[in-house]
Amino acid sequence: MFKSVGLVARYDKKHAIKLAEELAQYLKTKGLKVYIEDTLAGKINAQGKLVPLANMKTDFIITIGGDGTILRTCIAVPKPEPPILAINMGVRGFLTEVEPKNACVAVEKCLNGEYKIEKCAKLALSTGGEAAPDALNDVVISAGEPSKILYTQIFKDEKPILKCQADGLIVSTQTGSTGYSLSAGGPVLDKEVDAFVLTPICSLTVFHSIVFPADSKVTIKAIRPKKVLVLIDGNYRLATAKEPTLTVTRSKNVTSFIRFKDDFYNRLRSRLLFKGTG
Amino acid sequence: MFKSVGLVARYDKKHAIKLAEELAQYLKTKGLKVYIEDTLAGKINAQGKLVPLANMKTDFIITIGGDGTILRTCIAVPKPEPPILAINMGVRGFLTEVEPKNACVAVEKCLNGEYKIEKCAKLALSTGGEAAPDALNDVVISAGEPSKILYTQIFKDEKPILKCQADGLIVSTQTGSTGYSLSAGGPVLDKEVDAFVLTPICSLTVFHSIVFPADSKVTIKAIRPKKVLVLIDGNYRLATAKEPTLTVTRSKNVTSFIRFKDDFYNRLRSRLLFKGTG
Amino acid sequence: MFKSVGLVARYDKKHAIKLAEELAQYLKTKGLKVYIEDTLAGKINAQGKLVPLANMKTDFIITIGGDGTILRTCIAVPKPEPPILAINMGVRGFLTEVEPKNACVAVEKCLNGEYKIEKCAKLALSTGGEAAPDALNDVVISAGEPSKILYTQIFKDEKPILKCQADGLIVSTQTGSTGYSLSAGGPVLDKEVDAFVLTPICSLTVFHSIVFPADSKVTIKAIRPKKVLVLIDGNYRLATAKEPTLTVTRSKNVTSFIRFKDDFYNRLRSRLLFKGTG
Amino acid sequence: MFKSVGLVARYDKKHAIKLAEELAQYLKTKGLKVYIEDTLAGKINAQGKLVPLANMKTDFIITIGGDGTILRTCIAVPKPEPPILAINMGVRGFLTEVEPKNACVAVEKCLNGEYKIEKCAKLALSTGGEAAPDALNDVVISAGEPSKILYTQIFKDEKPILKCQADGLIVSTQTGSTGYSLSAGGPVLDKEVDAFVLTPICSLTVFHSIVFPADSKVTIKAIRPKKVLVLIDGNYRLATAKEPTLTVTRSKNVTSFIRFKDDFYNRLRSRLLFKGTG
Repeated sequence: MFKSVGLVARYDKKHAIKLAEELAQYLKTKGLKVYIEDTLAGKINAQGKLVPLANMKTDFIITIGGDGTILRTCIAVPKPEPPILAINMGVRGFLTEVEPKNACVAVEKCLNGEYKIEKCAKLALSTGGEAAPDALNDVVISAGEPSKILYTQIFKDEKPILKCQADGLIVSTQTGSTGYSLSAGGPVLDKEVDAFVLTPICSLTVFHSIVFPADSKVTIKAIRPKKVLVLIDGNYRLATAKEPTLTVTRSKNVTSFIRFKDDFYNRLRSRLLFKGTG
Repeated sequence: MFKSVGLVARYDKKHAIKLAEELAQYLKTKGLKVYIEDTLAGKINAQGKLVPLANMKTDFIITIGGDGTILRTCIAVPKPEPPILAINMGVRGFLTEVEPKNACVAVEKCLNGEYKIEKCAKLALSTGGEAAPDALNDVVISAGEPSKILYTQIFKDEKPILKCQADGLIVSTQTGSTGYSLSAGGPVLDKEVDAFVLTPICSLTVFHSIVFPADSKVTIKAIRPKKVLVLIDGNYRLATAKEPTLTVTRSKNVTSFIRFKDDFYNRLRSRLLFKGTG
Repeated sequence: MFKSVGLVARYDKKHAIKLAEELAQYLKTKGLKVYIEDTLAGKINAQGKLVPLANMKTDFIITIGGDGTILRTCIAVPKPEPPILAINMGVRGFLTEVEPKNACVAVEKCLNGEYKIEKCAKLALSTGGEAAPDALNDVVISAGEPSKILYTQIFKDEKPILKCQADGLIVSTQTGSTGYSLSAGGPVLDKEVDAFVLTPICSLTVFHSIVFPADSKVTIKAIRPKKVLVLIDGNYRLATAKEPTLTVTRSKNVTSFIRFKDDFYNRLRSRLLFKGTG
Repeated sequence: MFKSVGLVARYDKKHAIKLAEELAQYLKTKGLKVYIEDTLAGKINAQGKLVPLANMKTDFIITIGGDGTILRTCIAVPKPEPPILAINMGVRGFLTEVEPKNACVAVEKCLNGEYKIEKCAKLALSTGGEAAPDALNDVVISAGEPSKILYTQIFKDEKPILKCQADGLIVSTQTGSTGYSLSAGGPVLDKEVDAFVLTPICSLTVFHSIVFPADSKVTIKAIRPKKVLVLIDGNYRLATAKEPTLTVTRSKNVTSFIRFKDDFYNRLRSRLLFKGTG
């Protein structure tokens, strides 16, 4: 039984904030403790405690936005992550579950326990430098700008396997395989396959996506340039040592989504034929 | 301890037959019973019993040729398959282990037990029609000629997931992922990942490779045209019913290769930069 | 002023034949001589002379069908080709101009001279063997079945430039660049660029599309296998000598389409997001 | 007859500077006026006038380095550009003509007039903001970092044709088509085709390379984000207005290379199978 809930909404969209207000009201009525992300302070008119994501220890979280809103939530909330009900109010909502007009019905189902939990594997990143949050979608290492070549050596379980010269490399989970990795030419990983995938970005040398077993340890050693850019879920920018060595493994943490039906391949279809906002 | 050996060689290459003769002689000397594929009858000058592949029940098999020679051997030999020592005398020898000049040393190591066995998963194909051999590399379903569109519906574990219009579809093992599937734009599957991959050939609709867990059941239903061509390992042509439904799962059989070192990624590198014979 | 018209329709679709009947009636009323493709004999109930495509010397032609109907018309009609008004009654109608419900209005505009002519370059194919019709979309050379490698040498203006091992090669016009060549990974050629494009199908070796100037002479020499399959516009199957040498140049003939607006990029968008009939 | 020569060399490679010294000496002996790029000041021990690239008005220029050295030379030297003899001392030397050991022989041939000139088209970029140098390879517009989507609208000759959501867009010359555009999946443009090519980088939406006629005017309007990064030849970073509109046309300038043989397709082969320095 859910007794507390966190609300995270895009703060640049009036409709998102308005929906957050309505849901806060509704959840309050239902007797839940409501916590609201503090970036909405001064923008939202709702009763609820304002807290930073990092303190949002609630029974579940409602995100109102697109994939970006979900990804930054997963990075910041305390572990283990509470399950997320994702309402789509974004340009790209491939991870979301519910359209805004169905938000109230969906929340009611949640409170009645009429849902399934979809657990999504995450990637753990370790490097000599700063501690890094886990990735739900992907870890991207690059020279920091397009057409600037990053020269790397790749290891699997400590053994050197290939070198690569490319704009960058994407290490992606099953969830992320329909995101940036797909745009770069990578395969779709069925959500039940126990694996992650390495995909080069605009490789100068001949190089294809490689699918590794989930229990592998993939290490990427930057040879040139000395400074690289590491991005986690397109959101979190990691400061690295010079000529860094990044090691990627499956995380012990997972992200949980509240789902009402099993529609991985419906979401995939909408992703493949995505027309953007134009 | 190996007591019997099968010899399979390309019958269109003198060097291959000559090497087969030398090895037959050598193996005889070492006290092994030698069986030779009967397609070499009249071409080879060696003591050894001529048998068809389907009767080659030996402790191990030596193939002298390229990937084609290995694939047709795996299709035909009795199950469970004896391990294969593959000597490279082909245009494409990505699966082979030993260059001809090292053949004798390699055979000696085999007899001394100085080798590892690499087990490779295979795919089982079932259809309403004819019984089909397992695939070491891939199952290809197509309309039978380039630019003729095959329209299919794809199911995972009985659930419809996607439709596809393409020249054809490749279902490939880890081993086969560096073969035809790669040429069609598919990913490389690390040999330890427990998965197989579906890759479209020249898709008219937007469609990417999908990596499925090894225990999935992937079904391809041909919608149009009514007659399709099914090829197993590029060798075995399957007669199908009209508008056939093909179901692909992991086979209970495996192919075993005799290896002296672990060089999946060396073989991959030679594959990626393959220049052909030109 | 149009005084005679040819009618070509899919003979496997009742709606297409019915529309042909209506248009024949309408055109008759307007005083035109109506010729109907003789494959409709016994299927169509209309006044009009039944003639084979090869004898259809009319002022313009109306096709009722998809791209396949247009392509087989262009291959067979006497040269120079009369302009084509293409009514879409096919699965793939990327080349068509008019939806069936607007057919009568479109025909009226034609008779009033309210249209533009879009001239499309064609490719001429010469080989030691049989004379070949020009291609509006593409010339495809292949080993005849998927996963069977065709090994070729490619020349530009008599000079050898590259070798290729692939399922096949597509030489495509601007018009064809949004067809099979695109499915094989080729670029879109803007219809005003004076060029044609060579695209490999599932290349085993590293090979990309090459865009040649329209006045080049591109020669493809088949090295292996000895027998190859040559397809023109996906329709016309060319018998070739063994180990044939094919030479492709721009044809002196063009295909002319009747267009009411300039919508190359609209057609491209519908092509890129094509969902098939599923 | 060449009476003056400019010398440009990588200043981070001793061998390049040493070769520059030898060539300076040799050219002096032959009676030429020698100008040396002033970035070598203090590093090179040679008689010759130190000048910035922007003042290097000489009869021809020798570059000692890789493609990067050539590209920055072409951007900076006064127009019309003197012909370039490119000696390969770089990681990527696809544009270079001569290996270091043949440098002296090549220079002698130059002085004897035993060479051909290869003229390469360039792209002119205009924008509301800063004046921009022409591109020999490509103009790249992006959001500035991998996985950050740039949303653009594309126009041909003032007409809107397509929208695109991608990491970025590359507009590439024939010369540049074997560079970054190829890495991003674009086609090779034969050097005689009168065209340039637009290639998306990791497109989120379905989008392919488009080949435009050389006399087109292609305009890219950035819709989101407001700030974009424009890179010319991977070297020159253009400051743009917010939400900039970039217009690309063929430049009236060309770059001229001194060539001893016609080997576009040899260079292409080395590019396709490029292994990097690993």
